[in-house]
Amino acid sequence: MAKLSHWFAKGSPMTIKLENLGKAVLDTQYAVRGPIVARAAELEREGREIIYCNIGNPQALEQKPLTYIRQTLALAQYPELIETGAGLFPADVLETARKLLAGSKYGMGAYSESKGVRFVREAVARFISQRDGIEADPEAIYLTDGASKGVQAALRIVIGAPSDGIMIPIPQYPLYSATITLYEGRQVNFYMDEGNDWKLSLAMLESSYREAVAQGVKVRAICVINPGNPTGSIMDWENIAMVIRFAKAHDLTILADEVYQENVYLAGERFVSFAKVMAELGEKDVSLFSFHSCSKGFLGECGQRGGYMEIRNIPADVVAQILKIQSVGLCANLTGQMTTYCLVNPPRPGQPSYELFARERDGILSELKQRAVILAEGLNRIPGVQCNKVQGAMYCFPRLTLPPGRSDFDYCMSLLEETGICVVPGSGFGQVPGTAHFRTTILPPTYKMKMVVEKLAAFHAAYK
Amino acid sequence: MAKLSHWFAKGSPMTIKLENLGKAVLDTQYAVRGPIVARAAELEREGREIIYCNIGNPQALEQKPLTYIRQTLALAQYPELIETGAGLFPADVLETARKLLAGSKYGMGAYSESKGVRFVREAVARFISQRDGIEADPEAIYLTDGASKGVQAALRIVIGAPSDGIMIPIPQYPLYSATITLYEGRQVNFYMDEGNDWKLSLAMLESSYREAVAQGVKVRAICVINPGNPTGSIMDWENIAMVIRFAKAHDLTILADEVYQENVYLAGERFVSFAKVMAELGEKDVSLFSFHSCSKGFLGECGQRGGYMEIRNIPADVVAQILKIQSVGLCANLTGQMTTYCLVNPPRPGQPSYELFARERDGILSELKQRAVILAEGLNRIPGVQCNKVQGAMYCFPRLTLPPGRSDFDYCMSLLEETGICVVPGSGFGQVPGTAHFRTTILPPTYKMKMVVEKLAAFHAAYK
Repeated sequence: MAKLSHWFAKGSPMTIKLENLGKAVLDTQYAVRGPIVARAAELEREGREIIYCNIGNPQALEQKPLTYIRQTLALAQYPELIETGAGLFPADVLETARKLLAGSKYGMGAYSESKGVRFVREAVARFISQRDGIEADPEAIYLTDGASKGVQAALRIVIGAPSDGIMIPIPQYPLYSATITLYEGRQVNFYMDEGNDWKLSLAMLESSYREAVAQGVKVRAICVINPGNPTGSIMDWENIAMVIRFAKAHDLTILADEVYQENVYLAGERFVSFAKVMAELGEKDVSLFSFHSCSKGFLGECGQRGGYMEIRNIPADVVAQILKIQSVGLCANLTGQMTTYCLVNPPRPGQPSYELFARERDGILSELKQRAVILAEGLNRIPGVQCNKVQGAMYCFPRLTLPPGRSDFDYCMSLLEETGICVVPGSGFGQVPGTAHFRTTILPPTYKMKMVVEKLAAFHAAYK
Repeated sequence: MAKLSHWFAKGSPMTIKLENLGKAVLDTQYAVRGPIVARAAELEREGREIIYCNIGNPQALEQKPLTYIRQTLALAQYPELIETGAGLFPADVLETARKLLAGSKYGMGAYSESKGVRFVREAVARFISQRDGIEADPEAIYLTDGASKGVQAALRIVIGAPSDGIMIPIPQYPLYSATITLYEGRQVNFYMDEGNDWKLSLAMLESSYREAVAQGVKVRAICVINPGNPTGSIMDWENIAMVIRFAKAHDLTILADEVYQENVYLAGERFVSFAKVMAELGEKDVSLFSFHSCSKGFLGECGQRGGYMEIRNIPADVVAQILKIQSVGLCANLTGQMTTYCLVNPPRPGQPSYELFARERDGILSELKQRAVILAEGLNRIPGVQCNKVQGAMYCFPRLTLPPGRSDFDYCMSLLEETGICVVPGSGFGQVPGTAHFRTTILPPTYKMKMVVEKLAAFHAAYK
């Protein structure tokens, strides 16, 4: 490949100039793919082995896709195979592909409605109904290119002016802080209680709200990530009801990021959705955006970019605005839409593909559960490192005791340079001032996880 | 499916309220999927046959996907088929799928680098090099979910303040006006010369620029669509050089929308890229963003949402900002990335899949060419309708003589109600004040096209 030097020549009088870029663009930070990850890629090109624990990207760490999903997608892409390759696929997968193609009307190559293929939205609504025992409406479902795009669509609508505040948990997934900055809203932090398994308390919410209002912020919405990223904590019914009542009391809209709903590891814990609690409370005034994704759970289909947003208690005039803004981007990719169909419509017991599906699913979930324990226990054995149990999601967010003058950024960069382990400093997620953390995924294969813990322990002991 | 009534109940005290939404969101308009299209969907649900001429969505109008693309995508999704189904695929497609899977490292299910899979970006750079006889750098390529997302990424970077102006052709594709409104920049119109086959003139550019500057606008960039949407016009080398010199003189960045580069119908016309002319002029200061897509040309793979943005003459500090903003969205969908690989790397003469590929490609292009002629000639035979030759792209933008007091919006709505033909009023694209137009695609199958023209003629004659 020919090399170009002129396009990145510095100091040249090019027509686009850094000083003319917007403050919002310049201020946006996204640590999950920030300078430490850039350095990791550099080291990898130099031949170093890097263990990427910076991002929830399971299939980059040896997790295999579920067979029924890939079979369905292959048939949807090349429908001739339903006939010519019939012998290579289970009967129920052939049937699903046929239904999907008929339901999509034009297959994978046409733009769908802006909201996504109605047939898939109907399946999502049935999934929510059955999961939660509540009503769900296909017209309130928007299929999105992964959950990130759904969250961005919701924030685009909710942030109406520079004084509009969005409450986010600290620590949080930096998609939230980055998008609030980019859309020029005000980030309003509320702290999760690290000493109490990262639980939320009403006192914390109220004090964060009061402080923001005192600063002239008009608080419009509260974001919640359940199960938590990066904390791994899980909210119970009462906790969720508390957030809903808090939102109602202060006229707030709720954004509920529920992409880790299948990732619950601790015995006795289970996922409860905001939509379910809201319905059970009979709450009809608190506006709710909920998000789900094909990238997490046991699918781990990050590259397909599938997901959905469900809206509840949104007035018709605002719904029209949501649809209009979605329509400018035309529609989510059809493969992602079809993957979402598979997410909400897995093989059922008795179907030919069920046994393999169940084996693959259970294998992935039990591996994740095992790694969550190995990682948290291993980290807690390192003097100066302390972490809560990983109840759910795909991350661990240990607290560090650091030598004076050292930041978690320095620590993570040195860890990378010395061990090849790539994690993200706590500063990228937010933390109580004066504390230091990092986020690591629980995704390295089990046989590597012990080595990761050992390397971390040795590194930490020697870190000055 | 159970019906919900509460989520769209009007006038209820829900926490999200129209009056709190941002002006930018409220002001955004996107006619290609506006009220006329919504009405068309309503009529269709009531059982009416609708001919959707509002959007360039070929596979929704009976265009078939290219076999080698779908075969490649099926194998990439379900790699086991490379072995188990080997007999069902040509050898070169099996080989391409193997290379793609190896090149992507983790297949279709993992997030790629934010810019997209390097292997695909290398293929894009080779394609540009070979198409234009110029150098191209894979690191200057960003794979995007369709070209729309690329255009939005570029505008996000270029619009830095509310006084920043973006010059756009009138008529234009409303993605541009919608995104400029959403990002709170200033839209600066320049008119294409309808009486001269929609050509651009330097005088028009200069007068539009001067007028904007006089109003306090800081003009930052100029957008060009070549071949033109909705005009179907094609720019030659001299025309492009004129725009580049104009941009240089006024310190403007260029956004070149080249998604219709394969759609050239008129004998003697050919597509020339901005990158090529810029290189041939030896121009190293004018910053350029160019866009290409899998949705148009002869692929018509709109639902796969594949495309790329190439950047030239951008300083390193701005490049870092582009990459950062792209990384918040993680990456484009992998199916779209792989479709882009197929776009830039089609079967070559002598390969087993070439003959079928060439037959499918030539069939689609010759149909489109035929329809462009039938449509333009047919429209020109209607008294009170007048249009230029469709030189390229997928649209025709005829001018209408309307009864007094009637707008093109009224006209298009009546046309839909009476004939089932769905087109978009000229006001959605912009037009010289006092004139009226509509945009129709040339995509209805040839056997339907004559009927479309006849229905239009009858409707127009009776329209009061």
